[in-house]
Amino acid sequence: MSSFAQAHRLPAGPVDLTAIDPAGHPAYDGSKEEGEAALEALGPELADLQERLYANKESGRNVLLVLQGMDTSGKGGVLEHTVGLVSPAGVKVTSFKAPTDEEKAHDFLWRIEKALPPAGLIGVFDRSHFEDVLIVKVHEWADAAEIERRYEAINVFEQKLVDSGTIVVKCMLHISPEEQKSRLLARLDDPTKHWKFNPGDLDERALWPAYRDAYEIALERTNTAAAPWHVIPSDRKWYRNLVIGHLLLDALRGLDLQWPVADFDVEVEKQRLADEEPIA
Amino acid sequence: MSSFAQAHRLPAGPVDLTAIDPAGHPAYDGSKEEGEAALEALGPELADLQERLYANKESGRNVLLVLQGMDTSGKGGVLEHTVGLVSPAGVKVTSFKAPTDEEKAHDFLWRIEKALPPAGLIGVFDRSHFEDVLIVKVHEWADAAEIERRYEAINVFEQKLVDSGTIVVKCMLHISPEEQKSRLLARLDDPTKHWKFNPGDLDERALWPAYRDAYEIALERTNTAAAPWHVIPSDRKWYRNLVIGHLLLDALRGLDLQWPVADFDVEVEKQRLADEEPIA
Repeated sequence: MSSFAQAHRLPAGPVDLTAIDPAGHPAYDGSKEEGEAALEALGPELADLQERLYANKESGRNVLLVLQGMDTSGKGGVLEHTVGLVSPAGVKVTSFKAPTDEEKAHDFLWRIEKALPPAGLIGVFDRSHFEDVLIVKVHEWADAAEIERRYEAINVFEQKLVDSGTIVVKCMLHISPEEQKSRLLARLDDPTKHWKFNPGDLDERALWPAYRDAYEIALERTNTAAAPWHVIPSDRKWYRNLVIGHLLLDALRGLDLQWPVADFDVEVEKQRLADEEPIA
Repeated sequence: MSSFAQAHRLPAGPVDLTAIDPAGHPAYDGSKEEGEAALEALGPELADLQERLYANKESGRNVLLVLQGMDTSGKGGVLEHTVGLVSPAGVKVTSFKAPTDEEKAHDFLWRIEKALPPAGLIGVFDRSHFEDVLIVKVHEWADAAEIERRYEAINVFEQKLVDSGTIVVKCMLHISPEEQKSRLLARLDDPTKHWKFNPGDLDERALWPAYRDAYEIALERTNTAAAPWHVIPSDRKWYRNLVIGHLLLDALRGLDLQWPVADFDVEVEKQRLADEEPIA
């Protein structure tokens, strides 16, 4: 486990998000510029391991990166800067929005199952099944018994994923309300960012303490050995991106991916090419 | 239209692939290193336009990049080096393999429809519906009348796509049989590339003239004004990637994507943030 995972893997037990500094960078003491360069430097190994994962797709292994966090916490930035270090051919990104009528007519995990990455790919969930115990809990769109049922359903679901060969990397992008305020103001000040803003964002922001409670409970209840949570200090974008780069690297390295050995006779094939008729 | 599109958009009429130099680089006379740097230099504008496309998803517009070519022609390389210049969150890549039993039980366009990009995204087809008039024709897995039907069905399908707001960019990655031989030998010489090789690749290679014929007919029959073909000289990987970068840029620029104007009162929202109660 990297020092990044050690620093940010959530320990078992009750969760107090106020005790985790959203601006901290405990696993890296370089500057912003150095941190950005350090992330870039992970690119070649990440790209190599992604290709090895794909090459080994017959093994059934894959990786699922789950990104959760309050609005402006930077899920899109992680996609662009960290996930963008590997070939898009090796990545399946799903951005979960408000469920459709069809999705609402099924259990909350139905649309999640459909979005799982195939073997050999890195799946990324930009928001996820955790919305169903976060926004849904905060707004009381489901009753307490149903929310309670969902924590366990999530754990069973994720255990099944892990058992079937998926490495699940769960990341909560932890920002401070002050940083969110600053990012929302920056959006409002920049006409090229207005499309990212919705007045409803401020209504949700006003529910910050309720969201924090919902996160704390969800993190505690679903922080399993099979699929542990990481709480990523995200007030500094470069640190957030760097930590997740390392978590992705840890996941891929942990698979110990070797290049598949040829199941054909290499010399025979070379000879066939050497002996072929000229192509007109 | 960029000089790259001008150089490589296929003119109407019969197609003679032997008249197009696969090693040519008519739209760019710099060196390989310069060409690679020129592609990298497209990155910021491509990323900006991809974000604008996403921001405008309500408009229903999107882009579909279709990559076709013989084995080793570099579809994966285009994905990594050209498509990889934009955020993976804005891209939906579909790699078409041999159809499944379920897919075979439907019309050949059924799985293609399902893989179309949603509004706001750049879809990329790594192989496509054209396999159904290429490998299928070469191996006579469908009769002549069915192949004939498919050309027109493809044109109707693509016209519908274009009418509904999709820019379709069709690229045939044109390599020489000599270059393919060299790339196949390189794969055989490198144990980290053996997984990409299949003895069946040499059986297909032996059918090169039949594939060339099938490509020439398919290109001619489906080279419509709505969705024209580009034949990209692909013996030089850097030139292939650069041309497709420019074609993607042309497509996105052609959409004239403006940042959406706020549908809320920006000053009111700023004031709400300024007036809010402190978040505990």
